[in-house]
Amino acid sequence: MSMPDAMPLPGVGEELKQAKEIEDAEKYSFMATVTKAPKKQIQFADDMQEFTKFPTKTGRRSLSRSISQSSTDSYSSAASYTDSSDDEVSPREKQQTNSKGSSNFCVKNIKQAEFGRREIEIAEQDMSALISLRKRAQGEKPLAGAKIVGCTHITAQTAVLIETLCALGAQCRWSACNIYSTQNEVAAALAEAGVAVFAWKGESEDDFWWCIDRCVNMDGWQANMLSKAGKLCVPAMNVNDSVTKQKFDNLYCCRESILDGLKRTTDVMFGGKQVVVCGYGEVGKGCCAALKALGAIVYITEIDPICALQACMDGFRVVKLNEVIRQVDVVITCTGNKNVVTREHLDRMKNSCIVCNMGHSNTEIDVTSLRTPELTWERVRSQVDHVIWPDGKRVVLLAEGRLLNLSCSTVPTFVLSITATTQALALIELYNAPEGRYKQDVYLLPKKMDEYVASLHLPSFDAHLTELTDDQAKYLGLNKNGPFKPNYYRY
Amino acid sequence: MSMPDAMPLPGVGEELKQAKEIEDAEKYSFMATVTKAPKKQIQFADDMQEFTKFPTKTGRRSLSRSISQSSTDSYSSAASYTDSSDDEVSPREKQQTNSKGSSNFCVKNIKQAEFGRREIEIAEQDMSALISLRKRAQGEKPLAGAKIVGCTHITAQTAVLIETLCALGAQCRWSACNIYSTQNEVAAALAEAGVAVFAWKGESEDDFWWCIDRCVNMDGWQANMLSKAGKLCVPAMNVNDSVTKQKFDNLYCCRESILDGLKRTTDVMFGGKQVVVCGYGEVGKGCCAALKALGAIVYITEIDPICALQACMDGFRVVKLNEVIRQVDVVITCTGNKNVVTREHLDRMKNSCIVCNMGHSNTEIDVTSLRTPELTWERVRSQVDHVIWPDGKRVVLLAEGRLLNLSCSTVPTFVLSITATTQALALIELYNAPEGRYKQDVYLLPKKMDEYVASLHLPSFDAHLTELTDDQAKYLGLNKNGPFKPNYYRY
Amino acid sequence: MSMPDAMPLPGVGEELKQAKEIEDAEKYSFMATVTKAPKKQIQFADDMQEFTKFPTKTGRRSLSRSISQSSTDSYSSAASYTDSSDDEVSPREKQQTNSKGSSNFCVKNIKQAEFGRREIEIAEQDMSALISLRKRAQGEKPLAGAKIVGCTHITAQTAVLIETLCALGAQCRWSACNIYSTQNEVAAALAEAGVAVFAWKGESEDDFWWCIDRCVNMDGWQANMLSKAGKLCVPAMNVNDSVTKQKFDNLYCCRESILDGLKRTTDVMFGGKQVVVCGYGEVGKGCCAALKALGAIVYITEIDPICALQACMDGFRVVKLNEVIRQVDVVITCTGNKNVVTREHLDRMKNSCIVCNMGHSNTEIDVTSLRTPELTWERVRSQVDHVIWPDGKRVVLLAEGRLLNLSCSTVPTFVLSITATTQALALIELYNAPEGRYKQDVYLLPKKMDEYVASLHLPSFDAHLTELTDDQAKYLGLNKNGPFKPNYYRY
Amino acid sequence: MSMPDAMPLPGVGEELKQAKEIEDAEKYSFMATVTKAPKKQIQFADDMQEFTKFPTKTGRRSLSRSISQSSTDSYSSAASYTDSSDDEVSPREKQQTNSKGSSNFCVKNIKQAEFGRREIEIAEQDMSALISLRKRAQGEKPLAGAKIVGCTHITAQTAVLIETLCALGAQCRWSACNIYSTQNEVAAALAEAGVAVFAWKGESEDDFWWCIDRCVNMDGWQANMLSKAGKLCVPAMNVNDSVTKQKFDNLYCCRESILDGLKRTTDVMFGGKQVVVCGYGEVGKGCCAALKALGAIVYITEIDPICALQACMDGFRVVKLNEVIRQVDVVITCTGNKNVVTREHLDRMKNSCIVCNMGHSNTEIDVTSLRTPELTWERVRSQVDHVIWPDGKRVVLLAEGRLLNLSCSTVPTFVLSITATTQALALIELYNAPEGRYKQDVYLLPKKMDEYVASLHLPSFDAHLTELTDDQAKYLGLNKNGPFKPNYYRY
Repeated sequence: MSMPDAMPLPGVGEELKQAKEIEDAEKYSFMATVTKAPKKQIQFADDMQEFTKFPTKTGRRSLSRSISQSSTDSYSSAASYTDSSDDEVSPREKQQTNSKGSSNFCVKNIKQAEFGRREIEIAEQDMSALISLRKRAQGEKPLAGAKIVGCTHITAQTAVLIETLCALGAQCRWSACNIYSTQNEVAAALAEAGVAVFAWKGESEDDFWWCIDRCVNMDGWQANMLSKAGKLCVPAMNVNDSVTKQKFDNLYCCRESILDGLKRTTDVMFGGKQVVVCGYGEVGKGCCAALKALGAIVYITEIDPICALQACMDGFRVVKLNEVIRQVDVVITCTGNKNVVTREHLDRMKNSCIVCNMGHSNTEIDVTSLRTPELTWERVRSQVDHVIWPDGKRVVLLAEGRLLNLSCSTVPTFVLSITATTQALALIELYNAPEGRYKQDVYLLPKKMDEYVASLHLPSFDAHLTELTDDQAKYLGLNKNGPFKPNYYRY
Repeated sequence: MSMPDAMPLPGVGEELKQAKEIEDAEKYSFMATVTKAPKKQIQFADDMQEFTKFPTKTGRRSLSRSISQSSTDSYSSAASYTDSSDDEVSPREKQQTNSKGSSNFCVKNIKQAEFGRREIEIAEQDMSALISLRKRAQGEKPLAGAKIVGCTHITAQTAVLIETLCALGAQCRWSACNIYSTQNEVAAALAEAGVAVFAWKGESEDDFWWCIDRCVNMDGWQANMLSKAGKLCVPAMNVNDSVTKQKFDNLYCCRESILDGLKRTTDVMFGGKQVVVCGYGEVGKGCCAALKALGAIVYITEIDPICALQACMDGFRVVKLNEVIRQVDVVITCTGNKNVVTREHLDRMKNSCIVCNMGHSNTEIDVTSLRTPELTWERVRSQVDHVIWPDGKRVVLLAEGRLLNLSCSTVPTFVLSITATTQALALIELYNAPEGRYKQDVYLLPKKMDEYVASLHLPSFDAHLTELTDDQAKYLGLNKNGPFKPNYYRY
Repeated sequence: MSMPDAMPLPGVGEELKQAKEIEDAEKYSFMATVTKAPKKQIQFADDMQEFTKFPTKTGRRSLSRSISQSSTDSYSSAASYTDSSDDEVSPREKQQTNSKGSSNFCVKNIKQAEFGRREIEIAEQDMSALISLRKRAQGEKPLAGAKIVGCTHITAQTAVLIETLCALGAQCRWSACNIYSTQNEVAAALAEAGVAVFAWKGESEDDFWWCIDRCVNMDGWQANMLSKAGKLCVPAMNVNDSVTKQKFDNLYCCRESILDGLKRTTDVMFGGKQVVVCGYGEVGKGCCAALKALGAIVYITEIDPICALQACMDGFRVVKLNEVIRQVDVVITCTGNKNVVTREHLDRMKNSCIVCNMGHSNTEIDVTSLRTPELTWERVRSQVDHVIWPDGKRVVLLAEGRLLNLSCSTVPTFVLSITATTQALALIELYNAPEGRYKQDVYLLPKKMDEYVASLHLPSFDAHLTELTDDQAKYLGLNKNGPFKPNYYRY
Repeated sequence: MSMPDAMPLPGVGEELKQAKEIEDAEKYSFMATVTKAPKKQIQFADDMQEFTKFPTKTGRRSLSRSISQSSTDSYSSAASYTDSSDDEVSPREKQQTNSKGSSNFCVKNIKQAEFGRREIEIAEQDMSALISLRKRAQGEKPLAGAKIVGCTHITAQTAVLIETLCALGAQCRWSACNIYSTQNEVAAALAEAGVAVFAWKGESEDDFWWCIDRCVNMDGWQANMLSKAGKLCVPAMNVNDSVTKQKFDNLYCCRESILDGLKRTTDVMFGGKQVVVCGYGEVGKGCCAALKALGAIVYITEIDPICALQACMDGFRVVKLNEVIRQVDVVITCTGNKNVVTREHLDRMKNSCIVCNMGHSNTEIDVTSLRTPELTWERVRSQVDHVIWPDGKRVVLLAEGRLLNLSCSTVPTFVLSITATTQALALIELYNAPEGRYKQDVYLLPKKMDEYVASLHLPSFDAHLTELTDDQAKYLGLNKNGPFKPNYYRY
């Protein structure tokens, strides 16, 4: 594998080492759109600070990245059904061709395509908004000529997105952003359908970079720009902060995944449990609503007085962590901050206290502080460790302090549909925008497109929108087709 | 009274006629700050479109207005305890002096001051944030020299605000924004305390303008600017859109007042009732949450797909009004729109259906369409009309289609405390801002001040904020004292 | 008025003195059925301990009483609209005749009949189950020949019951169980319709007994039995413990009336308030569910470990009152016990703490202990007292410790409909039961009748029952028409 | 294995064939207490109809059975960690001895005892009530001399119960009631501790009866009675209908397990989903509360008007299944009835509709009707089948119509603790009751014991009971130590 030797992806590599866990590579999921004609250089990204660290050796290139700060972005919802007795030959050393004779891919086993196709079809049923977009737009092929490079989880849901992009006219090349998350059968189905996919479950780190390299550096895929370190050279769209995505990824999804994650790991009964939730942002609000509804007694810690006041009005005691740490049964962090739960807190927890992180990265709980000789770690189930104090007290640590819902629960296809539809629309918008509309900057998704994503998902609920009359639109000073709210509207 | 003759307040007068109801004059509540030195010309307003219609005959003047679009702003929470056998002599014709010999006021009966003082003291107990601000700031007197003219509801809660402004150094003159809402005893207590208040319950329209005139045009109160029609000549602060006020006025307050308003007027049992709520903004969200929690089955109508999707995720069917109008027991409008409920809808409602407006003004229900000969109106209680169809069907119309919670419920003192504290802080900010910070424009309340208002209210809930460590603040890139969120944050 | 002199109602009189408040006389509401032929001697009662204390001077009589232990039974939901300038002549001294020439009644003013009739008609709309029963049964007149004596609140809702009994063939005579609760217009309407009603608002205690006497002792109303003290001489039916009535009177009704009662008296904002609810029976469960739903933080005290465990599972901390008394904003008793809130607790409450009773009688809060010289009582509104400690601390006592929802809120007509329908059915059952089915004992309402009451109320909700197939009924071992549950089923 | 040849367990065998699935054998879980002296012959059972079908060839024997009608009874909450590469030799053919030299057991692998012991210790942490009972009673050994035979799921939680019985003085012999549910490691740990356990995961039907036979027929375990068919010869206690167990098994547990079961099988998002729940008993109430809280729109079908009215008041539309079957996303049965969901309903469901059973047995959904040639079954995950109509419509059938929460979710240890504690107390009560207190009949658990079970679980929630004063107890007519409620109280 030559890429690291020649010109590594320095930002990514550095971050990877800091994170100390290759699973974190999923933060670097991206989609890149490359066009033959340099006039179309578009990109969207979630987090430009990190984005600008992402030059490649191949020269300037316009990238559409989706670096998720949210907990659920692009995550696979289904277990892989791969035959575990699969041969152990590395896919890189296999010669495989699909039924049309193409070998422009590298997957575990092309023969699993049929199984993967069924998985994709099942996913399509829950991603009707994306299919609806596909049907509406495939006549005009708004992405005709676009060349898109993607690096994401490769799952049935991602496949629906990829195949939608293809149906709208794009050519796609794809690799995995996580060495474990690829559904081999789905990758096979994509390869069979003609997508140049380079991914399998259980890649080595070397495999990982090899796949990205194969994905990005291909004959005929003219790389035509390279973002210099610290500079953004193409327009980009911040998909992550769109209202619809935010609410679904954070509030609505975490409302369900906190329950799912806790149940699957610990079988804990929620009724009557005392829980402290650190942080009352969207994620915290979702967690608290669900836990309260199921009979838990929830305490909040907050640094922001406005969120704290909201917590009060929603019926939660706002406390400092120290005030309740001795009495709670569960500690959940949702802050985006670091060292919210310290060794001192952990020392004071009662026996059997469950500790988990729903917020961000793996920094919120100071897990490192637990790696000391006097404490014994005991892995009791997958993703569940008992950390045992000398006096026999056990603290139940989930997912080693990493994100609970990435590790221990699944993400409903519906949420992924929101994300994927938003991404597809952003790509269409950027690719088709008149010259000059977008400059080298990061743009929020236009409100109207956000509303469009939402409207595409309403039929799933058999929800019927009311239309403004001319007279009402005039009275309100609105266009009948939206946007309906000012940009600062809080929803 | 000469003002209307000489130079009426044209915009206001016009609007009043459109509204056909003088109660709507409360939309023109304002507070004006006038300083001796012209360098300090500040103002805050909720709605500049209307504001610019507000020239007065006296020349330019810097006004701090608080025109409420929200349903609860500045409303009186308490019934007046005025002796109903009070003499019928107009206050304008009485000679009254307070115990210090001043006659610089015009109230119903200065002798009611003691009773009013107790009401104010009781209100103070629920407005501890404002009292806390008063205590913290009265040493430095940040409003020393400010002259503030106010036109609001005159209630015990307003009195706490006025007396706080005085304690911080301001001189205040006050009149009523509503001819019915003045608590005479409170006005008397203010007058006794030295505030120049001109207001009583049951003013005529002529009285109303006379009071405003007396309030505004006073010797020694140098008027020094007049905003030209269509132009804003002083910096202004949009208090209404501050997060704290919005959430409290709309979401949290309506969550309670919809129940209160319906109960007090109709004694309806909520359990099992089918309710359609038109509009799923903050007000609609509050109404729906409360009704659902008490066992009602709630349907939503929406024009905005994002709000519609939120309604779906929160467990409500999103329908067109026509789909459910025949079956629902209660219709509630929360749209800000007009003619949301039309005569056609009203014709199709079932017997005993209750119709009310929680949204805006009196336009949402087309009440005018019910003023036809074949329909009989029967007033069955205060604020409750039965409109009777020829076949005997009765529709129960509340508050004649005006705002239910203004007419038929009360507003908790705590909500008024939020509003008042925000107003006081905005005045301090504008009055003390360095020259040039604010230009002739409308400003949103700085996030940090919004957070400060919130923090002043946390002790009421015995809520304890967590402080960032230096290390955490650095990690998050935040100042330890806030602001803690970007401006676009949606809470 | 001779009755007290000649032969008082000793049990009642005694109890009245103990209760020290004539409002408590409502506990003695009853309905008595007297038939010409002695073979039909039926009665139903809620509380036989008290019932047996109720002999009258007139000899044995079969009584159908409804002594309410619940908080809402038979209460008037509407304010009286009586002209307050009504003449002050005692109704006992007036000569009034209705339009048919009858004077067999004594009401405030027969001329108010038309207004009262409209009130009754409005009530009928919300009591469709009772009207439905009336329509189904009026052909066969199942109460033909029955003579029924009633002593209840006289309201529009009671009137619907009385007129239903009449429509089913009974003759009715009625007096009031409470000297304040009579709606004069309704009494007038009943009198106009031919019911022998003896009641008005504002009776003296002497009036009260005079009315009962007139009601009971009438020529042609052959009294044919008198229950001896301590013995029950007729079969009786315990209406109060029927499932439907219990759940509505306690759980469902209190869920709404706690909010209503607190709002109307104190305008308190529920969001964020700390509340302790003493007792987690049906009433407590209803109060807690509502308060929690509106954002209050609720603590429970309990003596019964099963109810305590339920409270835990429902998400409430179970504490001793002393643990939280210093911090709570509201104290609500729902125990049926006495001295649950003692002077010691009251001494420790914080300033502005609200104290009220949703449970039983007036014993739960030790109000007597507050009648000491160092405490000042200040009546700030109707039903609201501030009790002021020497240091200025105020405790807000509602309804002087009597039942909050009787005093300060209303009861939805729908709940009264449940009660009234149950009572009517119990009367029909007892009156028509074959000789020997019921002995001199107290019977619970047969499960099937309870189910019938429920089924009569389902159309109000447009609820559609599923019918068992023959095969399913056989599988379950049930009759297709019910009863569907064993008697011990807990619902 | 001779037992079936010689004298089969006829009732059980018959039932097994009817049920067509050996998993249903868990209905026959029982515990039998045999004493040397015949004077102590006690038993408790949930369902005497079935119990009396359970004679064995060995003569009269007093059995304590726990046949669960509820969905969660005695279920294992944890996956087994057995080494899947375990040798395939049948345990019946192995010679194993524990460390004390005893071979009086038959388990998969005695060497797994240490792992199993840790599982038991972890379970003990969540069953503190049972441990607390163990500690309080082990001094007096109230079960000294008792010989108890059990046939239940063999899990860590059951082990805590068994070892508690041993600690209280009993001798125990145990076999499995389900051929799949044994945790081999736990069985090994019990065998190592000296319990005569005969069970392993993956027994054949022949193994199953062999184990029971070995368990029951042992030298020195004098069988001294055999209940004749149709007759109950020993006193028995109905543990299943105790309040505490009912509420936990049904309401509280199903409130959580419906979410868990649906998530683990389908990853469905609850928000906005339309769900119909058939049956609004305790199980239905639990399911509905949870689904509503997470944003589902829930419809109810009911045959019982009282439960239907409760559903209305709790905010659910009550419909016939046909009215909503075309529109719902999920169908859940909780009726105890059969053929609630018929082929006709299944034909009308929309694509992707999920169908599952939370009620009873496997009769509620007519799964047999789906075994027709035109429908294709596709197993997409464990416990998840897609049934595919000729037009491509897929219905998602969970657990083949068997109980969802037995098959697809886990049961919190806390619930099992309630059950186990109740069983232990019932055994103690029966074993120690004075001669004559219990006759050959089925008894409900005395209310006081139910309260005691509840009180043992309160410390888990840090819940503090209030004690009655002497004065209060007298006022209420209660013993200060309970029981606190009449037997018919509905909780």
